[in-house]
Amino acid sequence: MKLKINRNILLENLNNVGRALSTRNIIPIINGILFELSEEGLNLTATDNEITIRSFIKREDIKEIESTGSVVIYGRFILDILRKLSSEDVDIEEIDGCKVVISTPTSNYSLNTFNVMDYPIIKMDTNEDSIKLTAGNFKEIVNQTVFATSTQESKPLLTGINLKIIGDRLECVATDSYRLAKKSVLFSLMGSKNVNLVIPARNINEFVKLIDNDELEIELYAFSNRVLFKYENLLFQSSLLNGTYPNTDTLVPTDFETIYRVNVNEFYNAMDRASILAQAKDKNIVSLESKGNKLVLTSSSVEIGKIEEEIDYETVKGDNIRISFSVKYMMEALRSFTGKEVNIYFNGEIKPIIIRENDNGDLLQLILPIKTY
Amino acid sequence: MKLKINRNILLENLNNVGRALSTRNIIPIINGILFELSEEGLNLTATDNEITIRSFIKREDIKEIESTGSVVIYGRFILDILRKLSSEDVDIEEIDGCKVVISTPTSNYSLNTFNVMDYPIIKMDTNEDSIKLTAGNFKEIVNQTVFATSTQESKPLLTGINLKIIGDRLECVATDSYRLAKKSVLFSLMGSKNVNLVIPARNINEFVKLIDNDELEIELYAFSNRVLFKYENLLFQSSLLNGTYPNTDTLVPTDFETIYRVNVNEFYNAMDRASILAQAKDKNIVSLESKGNKLVLTSSSVEIGKIEEEIDYETVKGDNIRISFSVKYMMEALRSFTGKEVNIYFNGEIKPIIIRENDNGDLLQLILPIKTY
Repeated sequence: MKLKINRNILLENLNNVGRALSTRNIIPIINGILFELSEEGLNLTATDNEITIRSFIKREDIKEIESTGSVVIYGRFILDILRKLSSEDVDIEEIDGCKVVISTPTSNYSLNTFNVMDYPIIKMDTNEDSIKLTAGNFKEIVNQTVFATSTQESKPLLTGINLKIIGDRLECVATDSYRLAKKSVLFSLMGSKNVNLVIPARNINEFVKLIDNDELEIELYAFSNRVLFKYENLLFQSSLLNGTYPNTDTLVPTDFETIYRVNVNEFYNAMDRASILAQAKDKNIVSLESKGNKLVLTSSSVEIGKIEEEIDYETVKGDNIRISFSVKYMMEALRSFTGKEVNIYFNGEIKPIIIRENDNGDLLQLILPIKTY
Repeated sequence: MKLKINRNILLENLNNVGRALSTRNIIPIINGILFELSEEGLNLTATDNEITIRSFIKREDIKEIESTGSVVIYGRFILDILRKLSSEDVDIEEIDGCKVVISTPTSNYSLNTFNVMDYPIIKMDTNEDSIKLTAGNFKEIVNQTVFATSTQESKPLLTGINLKIIGDRLECVATDSYRLAKKSVLFSLMGSKNVNLVIPARNINEFVKLIDNDELEIELYAFSNRVLFKYENLLFQSSLLNGTYPNTDTLVPTDFETIYRVNVNEFYNAMDRASILAQAKDKNIVSLESKGNKLVLTSSSVEIGKIEEEIDYETVKGDNIRISFSVKYMMEALRSFTGKEVNIYFNGEIKPIIIRENDNGDLLQLILPIKTY
């Protein structure tokens, strides 16, 4: 393998596939990036056995190809080298089947390589059932739900988001069993196949971080044990979590005793200040009480003191309420809304709290209250 | 104590004194900030017993003083509260001698206070021997030397910088016994007293971080066991390290066999790239060799590979050389120079390497080479 290529083009593609490199990995070869140079172009692949990312640089973007071939280069070092170089082009040449030389007019790097034969064979083929989505929409859907996944390995299925496509409806659900985030949208670019996947939160987060142009299209290919996304010149593949994701439809009440309407920013900032006294994450409790024409948020700690915040609100329905909940959960839920105002729905002080932009809002956040007596 | 004050003014001053708060402290009361309100204004004091910072807000900058008095408020919480509030003013009132209420029209924070009587009594008086320095100059001198101090507690005296003032000459020295940084300047704003202090690196770093206006003046007051700096409305006091700082004058050779002149940026960037293979800090070795009209930097690791970098240079004096040194030390030394080019002085491959802008440069960096054979 021997080629000359623009440094920025190579770096950009290596940065993308480099997201699949794990720092915690103990299998040496998957710290490497697989370079596969053919007459069509250069394929770069990295994997941590959970996520695999492949990027294709087409022939026109390569200055010279002197000989084709494959090589596995230590990912961290090739990335560091390309980031710190300032030359326009770099030459890359495999020598003796055991090292690669990266050179510019003033720099010369000789790196030992891994044996290509040892690199894991990863199936990344597509099928005919592609589902097309707008990149920006998909990123928004993920970001509005994924934070509600569980971080506890004892509930493995809840560490992923549940992505369902039924006809022209896409539904994304995440829950850690104390709160739930659910987004349900109709989309016009229909696929021919229904889909029901549980994608690990970490993996789907890495994928949406790669999206730098919201206008582009994503193609989604679902398989029994993997999901593959096609975006620009990238293939991103993630493993799936096995099992039947719990049915969450029954958790969301349809009737409410009390509905308040609040300004999202005002409510969020008051919550942020009320959280100051919360020293430990699990003591992160705020109480909300309607008093006349104000909502009063209170938080207290015997050792430190007491906080009281007032905000304006509007009663859409029902009566006064007093309820307590995790300030962290409420803040994360509020952050997912893009509008100026939201409705908060209550059924007394021990039933779930629901937040939506309005009764028909396609995004729903549910938080279980905390008993404080 | 009861007052109304502009939130930004109070926050800015609390941020400054807050730098003295330690997160590791086990004596509860020194997590507090002492508020002392008199008819003249408000003094804020924080200390970690090593550093003490006091800031004075004069009467004109306080909107209302209803009653004077003193109170010790938990630093982290009062800072968090003021940062997150958005109102223009805040009211602060001490109640029952055991709590303080911070309020705005929509927020009300009641914080338990510490007993003022338990706050350490810290002497911060000045004397008549003030030494006046330009803030920007002093900050530069510290930043050009302090990085060379030792981080090893086994050499306590070397964890500080040695600041000497003799007549109209100020000299600042730092060394960890493998390298040395020395700056020596003449200054016009003379003091009447000679000074020889060893100031802990962490403390002097905190002080220069407070300097936000290079044009202002600093007053330095030296005592046997402390040094006090006056800057704007701030008093900054540091403990000193006791002992006789080693005489480093004899370490710096005056004659050299070989002198090269290099471009600082070019040399620095080549060094930065050569450092890529250095996985562990102590293996951070680069070799420099003059080959014809190029200086060649090499670095290698049996497991990973080999790096070669070429840069241009000019021989001022002497012959070819081959020498090895710590790339980290060389990069830190190079960063301290503000000019475009520096001279590098050698006496063979086992004697100290010296770097200066020119033979009369007021900043000197010394690095011991590393034997690689």
